[in-house]
Amino acid sequence: MPLKNMRIALAQINLTVGDLSGNCQKIISYIQKARARGADIIAFPELALTGYPPEDLLLKHQFVRDNIHTLNRVKEASTGIITIAGFVDKNKGIYNAAAVISDGHLVDIYHKMNLPNYGVFDEHRYFQAGRRVPVYTVNGVCFGVNVCEDIWLDRGPAKLQALAGAGLIVNINASPFHMGKMSFREQLVQGRAGNYGAALAYVNLIGGQDELVFDGGSLIVDKSGQIVARAGRFSEEMIIADVEVGSCHKRITAGRKKKLDSLLKEGDFVEEVKIQAERSRQKKKALRRRMARKMSPSEEVYKALILGTGDYVLKNGFTEVLIGMSGGIDSALVTTIAVDALGKESVHGLFMPSLYTSEESRDDAAAQARNLGISMHTLSVDPIFNAYLKTLKDSFKGRKTDITEENLQARIRGNILMAFSNKFGWLVLTTGNKSEMSVGYATLYGDMAGGFAVIKDVPKTLVYDLCRWRNKKAGYDLIPESILQKEPTAELRPDQKDTDSLPPYPVLDPVLKAYVEDDLSYDEIEEMGCDIDCTKRVIAMIDRSEYKRRQAPPGVKITPRAFGRDRRFPITNKYRNY
Amino acid sequence: MPLKNMRIALAQINLTVGDLSGNCQKIISYIQKARARGADIIAFPELALTGYPPEDLLLKHQFVRDNIHTLNRVKEASTGIITIAGFVDKNKGIYNAAAVISDGHLVDIYHKMNLPNYGVFDEHRYFQAGRRVPVYTVNGVCFGVNVCEDIWLDRGPAKLQALAGAGLIVNINASPFHMGKMSFREQLVQGRAGNYGAALAYVNLIGGQDELVFDGGSLIVDKSGQIVARAGRFSEEMIIADVEVGSCHKRITAGRKKKLDSLLKEGDFVEEVKIQAERSRQKKKALRRRMARKMSPSEEVYKALILGTGDYVLKNGFTEVLIGMSGGIDSALVTTIAVDALGKESVHGLFMPSLYTSEESRDDAAAQARNLGISMHTLSVDPIFNAYLKTLKDSFKGRKTDITEENLQARIRGNILMAFSNKFGWLVLTTGNKSEMSVGYATLYGDMAGGFAVIKDVPKTLVYDLCRWRNKKAGYDLIPESILQKEPTAELRPDQKDTDSLPPYPVLDPVLKAYVEDDLSYDEIEEMGCDIDCTKRVIAMIDRSEYKRRQAPPGVKITPRAFGRDRRFPITNKYRNY
Repeated sequence: MPLKNMRIALAQINLTVGDLSGNCQKIISYIQKARARGADIIAFPELALTGYPPEDLLLKHQFVRDNIHTLNRVKEASTGIITIAGFVDKNKGIYNAAAVISDGHLVDIYHKMNLPNYGVFDEHRYFQAGRRVPVYTVNGVCFGVNVCEDIWLDRGPAKLQALAGAGLIVNINASPFHMGKMSFREQLVQGRAGNYGAALAYVNLIGGQDELVFDGGSLIVDKSGQIVARAGRFSEEMIIADVEVGSCHKRITAGRKKKLDSLLKEGDFVEEVKIQAERSRQKKKALRRRMARKMSPSEEVYKALILGTGDYVLKNGFTEVLIGMSGGIDSALVTTIAVDALGKESVHGLFMPSLYTSEESRDDAAAQARNLGISMHTLSVDPIFNAYLKTLKDSFKGRKTDITEENLQARIRGNILMAFSNKFGWLVLTTGNKSEMSVGYATLYGDMAGGFAVIKDVPKTLVYDLCRWRNKKAGYDLIPESILQKEPTAELRPDQKDTDSLPPYPVLDPVLKAYVEDDLSYDEIEEMGCDIDCTKRVIAMIDRSEYKRRQAPPGVKITPRAFGRDRRFPITNKYRNY
Repeated sequence: MPLKNMRIALAQINLTVGDLSGNCQKIISYIQKARARGADIIAFPELALTGYPPEDLLLKHQFVRDNIHTLNRVKEASTGIITIAGFVDKNKGIYNAAAVISDGHLVDIYHKMNLPNYGVFDEHRYFQAGRRVPVYTVNGVCFGVNVCEDIWLDRGPAKLQALAGAGLIVNINASPFHMGKMSFREQLVQGRAGNYGAALAYVNLIGGQDELVFDGGSLIVDKSGQIVARAGRFSEEMIIADVEVGSCHKRITAGRKKKLDSLLKEGDFVEEVKIQAERSRQKKKALRRRMARKMSPSEEVYKALILGTGDYVLKNGFTEVLIGMSGGIDSALVTTIAVDALGKESVHGLFMPSLYTSEESRDDAAAQARNLGISMHTLSVDPIFNAYLKTLKDSFKGRKTDITEENLQARIRGNILMAFSNKFGWLVLTTGNKSEMSVGYATLYGDMAGGFAVIKDVPKTLVYDLCRWRNKKAGYDLIPESILQKEPTAELRPDQKDTDSLPPYPVLDPVLKAYVEDDLSYDEIEEMGCDIDCTKRVIAMIDRSEYKRRQAPPGVKITPRAFGRDRRFPITNKYRNY
């Protein structure tokens, strides 16, 4: 009697780039868990063995060989279950591949057909594209396997596999987070399943890797497009569900066959692979339905920042962090995120007042540290600042005080933070937000000095939203209301306000989004109703600050386009369209 | 009477990314020069209108529209001559294209077929690949046009065009420099011409663009593979030569036709385009043969550094630079390059001794400044250093002096340099070499602080070669022999030597090349005969320093693999193959 149902497990796990052995061990432990729960299939994320994205490690032949060698251990552990796991295959070129392993045998290797080469992705730099569309038959049912981008194209391999008889499509992913992407993904997966008339199992990675956060949100959807299991976000878990797959031969009608032939691109071909698998016919224990709740935009961003920051710190061998606290909202948010990510014992604050620092800032920073239960050390920068001024006095004779002296203060703070970092082994977290990064309202080697820029992709207006969300969750003003209420200032000269140099953030942020994320032109931004002079000035500031961003530390991508690998802009650039 | 010869001009010019209007003006001025010298054809580099590489400017629709609009001005100026110029074409997607303009009419647009997506290149990120192989017939002769990478593939469009009757192939390039690449290019171009039995005109860009230097070396080669004109390197010039092209119909034999059909890939096709051009039959004035001499490796690298540095400074709107002079060889070389690039009046030296600075360093720095005729200012860092130590005293109580205090000194120097930069508008040039960048023997925000890292891709052993080459050219010890002779030291603690922390550079540099540029594994490097412990230690240092390099300023690429866009390595990376 053919099985018409399959029990599928998806392992949404946190893997580390380059950690072949650690990743392999984790994979094996989840194979055991899935087998114990009676799963017929367990699927792991894209490039699970190597971690994602391995970037130029892929150019090292030894790395590719080692990854293939490590796959053998996964193979040996896959008894009594079908394991699907991402790895790098080699055959002349290299491929972003999925191993299909059954009862200790590598029965097939699928090669990703659609290689993304936009945004943060560089897959054409490394991989050859697959041309073969396999479908697997086992005990009378039929399923297909493909990788990430493969499912984003409507007429891609997933559709071809469904037409060739697959009643279940397993799509393995390493899909980085940005705000709002999850609901888009969910619609896509549901739509594809309904359209193809096949169940769909979507497994995603979780974890932070340099600028990227993988948010999980794995899904199992039945052939009508209904979600039967939804994993949580930003945390490791395995979801498991029974899905109706239907017997293979019933699914292949003449109409489907004809359609399949018409869709196959020149050079691509379908191949059926038979999998021998002895399975017990025992009735399996029923499963409890897992249906994680959805998150609000503020919640998902906040959790992405926690995961991205925590993983950067820990995966790079640090345990403690240091933050320059100014009494302002940016450092208040970053400190709160750090405590949520690492625990209060691992977070150190340093308050570095100057003669321009207000009493209010001092009180606010102290209140923030108190609320979080962290230690905060205070060191005045004035003696050092005066030493600089004295040393530079003759050289700068006759010159007015200007941005030089402002930057010096910021750089003294940067140096003190780095001295603590060197002396105690703490990683410095910087506190600049995306609005500042965009227009260059930040001092290179000053407040930009540090190992990880937690909120560099968070626009200032969203900084406020995140603080309010966190306070609401805390049930009290964890981040003091006075910090949320006061006007933003860098306090580098008397009575300085951000608005001396910049438009108010609610005016600035939409222009930044339009120019940086949406690539709109000056004319198009003007049409949005933005002030003309302001828009011109803002665009010029963005273009002119590229050199600063090039020397900025990495930070978590949370928008559709972050700075870094995501936006590759020339520094030397005379294009002006305003 | 059909023309059997064509007079071809190649404009090897310095263009600027984004400067549509400036690039267009320069193109038009060269069209006029070529016409005045009786050229039938003038060819400009790849993406001449936009400059190369425009990177994510290409994602801005307005930029693409503006470039197409600007092409109209080139079209109007192209009377009495055939102009071939690179631009971005748009037709659903965008294409890396060559406009073929005759007598004011845009007669055809060629789309680059082979898009490089390795090394520094990201062309799949932006462009669609062309599928059409045009050949142009004019006055009974036939030629083909293609773009850069197209000629590196033996069975690519150049071969197809030759088989389809082209007696001249015009290949337009934006080919970045690395040491030794020119002789490889020259062999390639000569080999292709001889193989295809067609004359070949290879035009390359010159100029610096962020990390890249385009070195020119344009060539005109006859159908036997003999060079008939060779442009200089690193400088703007037009070369012009008469080449035998042969009448079109004589070139297309049955054998060629058959071969052509067998080589055409599915979906690609050949198309003949007729160009109407009225040309005078007057006897043209004979041309003087231009045959630039070849350069030694040291000379070509040195000239690349001059051009790359000068263009970065000037194209970004600076006129003067500032260099921290230590009395060591790296800053001596960088200062000399800066003077060669910008003139001595534009270069400022700053000597910043500490209690660890030797008299010898002071004398050497002063001698270097004197030899170059530049001003050198001296400021002791000790008072500021003491102010830091005093401020940090309580916090660091009970802790030993360590790298913290060394880094502080370097960072004070960085801050002072940046203060001068802010106050006077001078760009800071950093002085670190590739050996230091590789192993992280440099202080972030200290000696790494600055706008442009002139020799960041120059291994220390090559630093010596470049100094000796420059001294030989000067005819005396422009860079004092004492600087070349003394042992390298950072002078950040008593009696410090580089060899306290690192293997000697002649031992270190081959390991760095093997690991960074050649991607060899630990085992393979060991087989080269390198010391085992040393190799392990060096590889670990390289991997661990990725976070520093990510915050380094850009600098000139002179090796096959530089840091920056050229090597995309994860910071978070647990791969260890030793």
